[in-house]
Amino acid sequence: MQTNPLIQRLTFLSEIDRLKSVIRQSPILDQSRKENSAEHSWHVAMFALLLQDYASSSVNIERVIKMLLIHDVVEVDVGDTPIHGGSSPDEQHYLETQAANRLFGLLPKEQAAELLALWHEFEEAQSEDALFAKALDRIQPLLANVSTGGGTWTESNVTLEQVLQRYGPTIERGCPALWSICKQLSEEHFAISKHPTTTTTSTSMK
Amino acid sequence: MQTNPLIQRLTFLSEIDRLKSVIRQSPILDQSRKENSAEHSWHVAMFALLLQDYASSSVNIERVIKMLLIHDVVEVDVGDTPIHGGSSPDEQHYLETQAANRLFGLLPKEQAAELLALWHEFEEAQSEDALFAKALDRIQPLLANVSTGGGTWTESNVTLEQVLQRYGPTIERGCPALWSICKQLSEEHFAISKHPTTTTTSTSMK
Repeated sequence: MQTNPLIQRLTFLSEIDRLKSVIRQSPILDQSRKENSAEHSWHVAMFALLLQDYASSSVNIERVIKMLLIHDVVEVDVGDTPIHGGSSPDEQHYLETQAANRLFGLLPKEQAAELLALWHEFEEAQSEDALFAKALDRIQPLLANVSTGGGTWTESNVTLEQVLQRYGPTIERGCPALWSICKQLSEEHFAISKHPTTTTTSTSMK
Repeated sequence: MQTNPLIQRLTFLSEIDRLKSVIRQSPILDQSRKENSAEHSWHVAMFALLLQDYASSSVNIERVIKMLLIHDVVEVDVGDTPIHGGSSPDEQHYLETQAANRLFGLLPKEQAAELLALWHEFEEAQSEDALFAKALDRIQPLLANVSTGGGTWTESNVTLEQVLQRYGPTIERGCPALWSICKQLSEEHFAISKHPTTTTTSTSMK
């Protein structure tokens, strides 16, 4: 086992390069391919940086950004779990915890403990920081889906009710200011899907 | 022109999705493809988070992380400029400044000014934060190249002397603690390239 703290850190940074090959369900906006978890992590960190004014006043945005940078590293070992999949939450939690222990365990003890605690805080979704981070982690793919004619939703035959149920509570709890526009965009998307020739109220981002 | 501050921010976040399609010279570590600038931005932000102990004491790591998250967004308009390319620095600077003005200009005035100033600070490479960020932005591809049998260097027939000249000053100035290992890994790489059967001192990260 490596004991040089610099080599331990470089080993971890090398190991997590594999997140660039973990493919998510959501498309990138030009629809040329699916998004990977590394670029998703960058994008949600940018969401935090840009949307901090819509977080509750007790949110520490620097901690949220760090949380979002590391939130998906366990996928290096266990892959992405789609929101519209049918996997068992208990089994998923067990596997992800094992992955977090292995991956953060590559780091010097103190740093491993710090990042593992930050990852657990995100997963537990109780603190203000974690709730805001969780909300952004739902908002980004929701916007990707409405911007690409349905994205994951169309592929998986997801209904408006399922969108409101699967994304709504997390976004509304962690970032209530964003939920009204997310809900409106989702409703507009499904209205257009049902009646493609109907003109709806424009909340376009362009 | 959009004046709703939330829509302005979401428009910016949508626009920078295109960074996921800007392809850099460096490979990802499994060598299956080249890295894109969005996942590179995530990776260098992780380098900052993990290697903050090797920065000078006056570095504000949260600012460095923010700087690295936004440092490449101009590439949405102008593409990536390879370190081993022959482009004119003046022309590149002019085009990137125009891109920064356009992209950050999509944001509400105050936020646009803040992020534009942070981007300029990175480009000017004078502050302690910018020097550390610049060093990490060189260390990450250097390690990718030595970990993949040469990567960009092999493709572009780059010599050890060119590596030491093009990466060295930036890394040594912003993160002197990392330069000795980067130099050693580079020297080992070129020693192996010249004499593939020679056993060298192992500084492997595994």
